[in-house]
Amino acid sequence: MTIATARTDTIIDELRQVNLFTGLPESTLVHFAEKSHVKEGGKGKVLFIQGDESEWFYVVTRGWVKLFRETLEGSEAVIDVVTNGHAFGENAVFNGGKYSYSAEIIDPTRYIMLPTSLLEYHVEKQQRMAMNMLSGMARMQNIQSREIEHLNVQNAPQRIACFLLRLCPSDAQGTIRLNLPYDKLLIASRLGIKAETFSRALGKLKQDTNLKIDGSAVTIPSLSTLIEYTCTHCSQTFPCEDL
Amino acid sequence: MTIATARTDTIIDELRQVNLFTGLPESTLVHFAEKSHVKEGGKGKVLFIQGDESEWFYVVTRGWVKLFRETLEGSEAVIDVVTNGHAFGENAVFNGGKYSYSAEIIDPTRYIMLPTSLLEYHVEKQQRMAMNMLSGMARMQNIQSREIEHLNVQNAPQRIACFLLRLCPSDAQGTIRLNLPYDKLLIASRLGIKAETFSRALGKLKQDTNLKIDGSAVTIPSLSTLIEYTCTHCSQTFPCEDL
Repeated sequence: MTIATARTDTIIDELRQVNLFTGLPESTLVHFAEKSHVKEGGKGKVLFIQGDESEWFYVVTRGWVKLFRETLEGSEAVIDVVTNGHAFGENAVFNGGKYSYSAEIIDPTRYIMLPTSLLEYHVEKQQRMAMNMLSGMARMQNIQSREIEHLNVQNAPQRIACFLLRLCPSDAQGTIRLNLPYDKLLIASRLGIKAETFSRALGKLKQDTNLKIDGSAVTIPSLSTLIEYTCTHCSQTFPCEDL
Repeated sequence: MTIATARTDTIIDELRQVNLFTGLPESTLVHFAEKSHVKEGGKGKVLFIQGDESEWFYVVTRGWVKLFRETLEGSEAVIDVVTNGHAFGENAVFNGGKYSYSAEIIDPTRYIMLPTSLLEYHVEKQQRMAMNMLSGMARMQNIQSREIEHLNVQNAPQRIACFLLRLCPSDAQGTIRLNLPYDKLLIASRLGIKAETFSRALGKLKQDTNLKIDGSAVTIPSLSTLIEYTCTHCSQTFPCEDL
């Protein structure tokens, strides 16, 4: 029998917050926690590179990590930017054991490293773990389909508006104040907008919707104006179900 | 005991060609085949609409089907165009039972309709079916990540070149001749290129690589020129592993 220590207890509590580990028996969580490493890293630290053999997958418990793909000649496409409670690198299990993107820390981050081989073992052995993987991948597929849709049909100001809407609580009333979660250049990258056109797009968005941005502080005078501005150019409506 | 008829025998053979059904016991395939409908449909027939409750998922055995998302104001983003041996609509099982895109036939097509509830039953009951679903979704996730990457970093001629490269056999030598699988407007849509800029992009691609296109007949004088032209602007190299 395994006796959980204070360290594994903390990790188990953190894993419980992650969709991938929902509803699993205590013994499975102990198994993962005991084989894990908790680490901290600063901006710029590369966790893995696309195409590398995957030995670990990751869970963020604090901070932000950029998932991206880089072309041979050095251009970068940001696939996702993830924070607390998100797992990443886990899909390598079904990608011939290789990472399908690179991962780099963009803000001081605390993360848990868990063995890919253990995930493979439990996905094959436990129906619940396989179901959790499936739910997560279906959610990702939906998000990516929407992203392809937006890159096809939305202009840059609409894509920025959509990004902001996803930060708004669905029951918000009156003027909404929020902070950009990470820096504008990365937001531009995340939305597939060239750095040199981002300010112009932001200017157009402000002009069209009376939205204000001061540093990272955003003031949205009317949620419905922003919804009208962007969600008519989307196949889904606010609030997005998959977020 | 179930006795397979000639009809179900044919369907079972067809299902065996589909990744989702690989390695399943005969009895499961019989179960699916007996509950299936085989249909034919012509260009323009809509099979389902994004957001609808999913009663059926589909397998194409001949022809082409367009999977797309449509915005409130009517713009369309093509997510995929699928042909023989491909399943679609199956991810509704993990999307709250709803289709995450619409499907429309674009060429005379023969297809098999299979009950979504039966898929749900077998995915939960059979580890192998869950693993097949996972492999399929991982592959889709990889394809979509590459697509997001390309929409971010490649220009229109490079995206067309990539589309053509994926039609080339990886061991091709000398001049390659191939036919476009469906019409140019749909290819433009599939690649996120506006109809009005597609001819210009095609013109630039021809000029840059000496490629020739006459109707749907494409002549590629040099595979390596085309690879150099497009794959340096991608994080993967020719031939793509996930195709």
